[in-house]
Amino acid sequence: MTTTMTESIWLNGDIMPLAEARIGVEDRGFQFADGIYEVIRLYNGKPFTLDAHLRRLQKSARDIQLPLPIELADLQNEIAKFLTRAPLRDGMIYLQLTRGSAPRSHAFPQCKPTLLFYVRVLPPIPEPPAAEGVKLLTVPDERWKRCWIKSVALLPNVLAKNQALAAGADEAVFIDNDLVTECSSSNVFAVIGQHLITHPVGSKVLPGITRQVLLELAPKLGLNVDERPFSEEEARRADEIFITSATREISWAARWNDRRVGQGRCGPITLKLHSALRQKIARETA
Amino acid sequence: MTTTMTESIWLNGDIMPLAEARIGVEDRGFQFADGIYEVIRLYNGKPFTLDAHLRRLQKSARDIQLPLPIELADLQNEIAKFLTRAPLRDGMIYLQLTRGSAPRSHAFPQCKPTLLFYVRVLPPIPEPPAAEGVKLLTVPDERWKRCWIKSVALLPNVLAKNQALAAGADEAVFIDNDLVTECSSSNVFAVIGQHLITHPVGSKVLPGITRQVLLELAPKLGLNVDERPFSEEEARRADEIFITSATREISWAARWNDRRVGQGRCGPITLKLHSALRQKIARETA
Repeated sequence: MTTTMTESIWLNGDIMPLAEARIGVEDRGFQFADGIYEVIRLYNGKPFTLDAHLRRLQKSARDIQLPLPIELADLQNEIAKFLTRAPLRDGMIYLQLTRGSAPRSHAFPQCKPTLLFYVRVLPPIPEPPAAEGVKLLTVPDERWKRCWIKSVALLPNVLAKNQALAAGADEAVFIDNDLVTECSSSNVFAVIGQHLITHPVGSKVLPGITRQVLLELAPKLGLNVDERPFSEEEARRADEIFITSATREISWAARWNDRRVGQGRCGPITLKLHSALRQKIARETA
Repeated sequence: MTTTMTESIWLNGDIMPLAEARIGVEDRGFQFADGIYEVIRLYNGKPFTLDAHLRRLQKSARDIQLPLPIELADLQNEIAKFLTRAPLRDGMIYLQLTRGSAPRSHAFPQCKPTLLFYVRVLPPIPEPPAAEGVKLLTVPDERWKRCWIKSVALLPNVLAKNQALAAGADEAVFIDNDLVTECSSSNVFAVIGQHLITHPVGSKVLPGITRQVLLELAPKLGLNVDERPFSEEEARRADEIFITSATREISWAARWNDRRVGQGRCGPITLKLHSALRQKIARETA
């Protein structure tokens, strides 16, 4: 199997083909989900909002008491050098940090963390409104209460996503005590009138970077930002619903379970926000 | 580094030194905690309650929609053959099954699961009452709601255990809405009079195998088994508290946060249960 430069990986300082990269079976990422990760978009060969992703990585690391094995500035340099070797224009960086490999025990071991990142091509994202709207399926939010940590303990998210797929939907929306929190791998927003509503980050909501970018862009577009819990009933009468993530940018929702969302097409405020996001991306990755 | 026979591993049908065993970085066990595990005690070279562990593995697999890549009877044979090659008398088998390796995506991939098991020597367990009592620290139960699945998404357990260790305790007891559920890597029992009390298995409690063995032994010892939720207040006035797991068997609790448990020594009912457990172990692994 040939390995292109776009399929190489940086693993603890060494660069090798992704297919040849291996970790030990006693890596705590494998046995305990004792690790964190980031997914960063590349546009025009440049990582978008890299600073914000690395700051979030730092916070996740602190919140699981995992000292970063490298200064953020040095990590940023390693990523830049790697991207020079692997000149990918449009895609993503997947980065993961675990507590490393040690004989299995819940107690934190003395060992060297495992740090790796690699790049992947992403298929071009259809622009709204051309893109088909996503179908959302609500599922009970049965996840743990520290969802602000971007950890690899993603089994609950995997199960929710696959429950949605099995039901013919595209993404699962978590409902926690009748409140809409987030999706299995994206944040969710409701638009009612000129109000942009999304659940605050915290125990049940990851501080999504695309989410944060939109919250900063929205007031400049004349929108009122309501960062507050909202009920499923409120979501059902929203004019527009959309979900966001680094890899999907903004996807408008066409269905909420068996109901049409709003007018059943990509709404004007979703479009306006997407256009503002694209402009920011173009400015920062020119 | 020399590798003894006790440090070898069965990995997808191949046997190799544990230190040389590697998995790909895109194994879903590493990126998504998309896997399950078992820890089985070996006494006298024989796995104790292996059937029960394999049935639980089968149930965990079903509950995360992961088809077992091998019939249980064949797996049992592979374990038996492996134990002949790696003649360990007292220790444990660690077994893990993940959905396998595939390009990262929450959607279930079409790929071959990763199955492995290896053995480890365990230090001899001091017999109660000689053993020192464990100190328990209560922590809020912030885990997900499918704790009956023995998944590798153990980060919440790891954080709880290390919170206990940092506070000078030995194990963390999860408290869910004032109810005592289980510990970070063990089940917990309270003894009040002739009553043995433990929270039912389910969303917050793993069906521990040692737990189940004790629930079956208890009535034969004249104890009343109360499998029901119990409050922290009830635990605080218990005559005896103990915790159980495959590797620790039964550990009596000396402290509950800053309070002494019962008389501050290993209680008579804990001793009686431990003695019955040891007799069963001796019978079944002679």
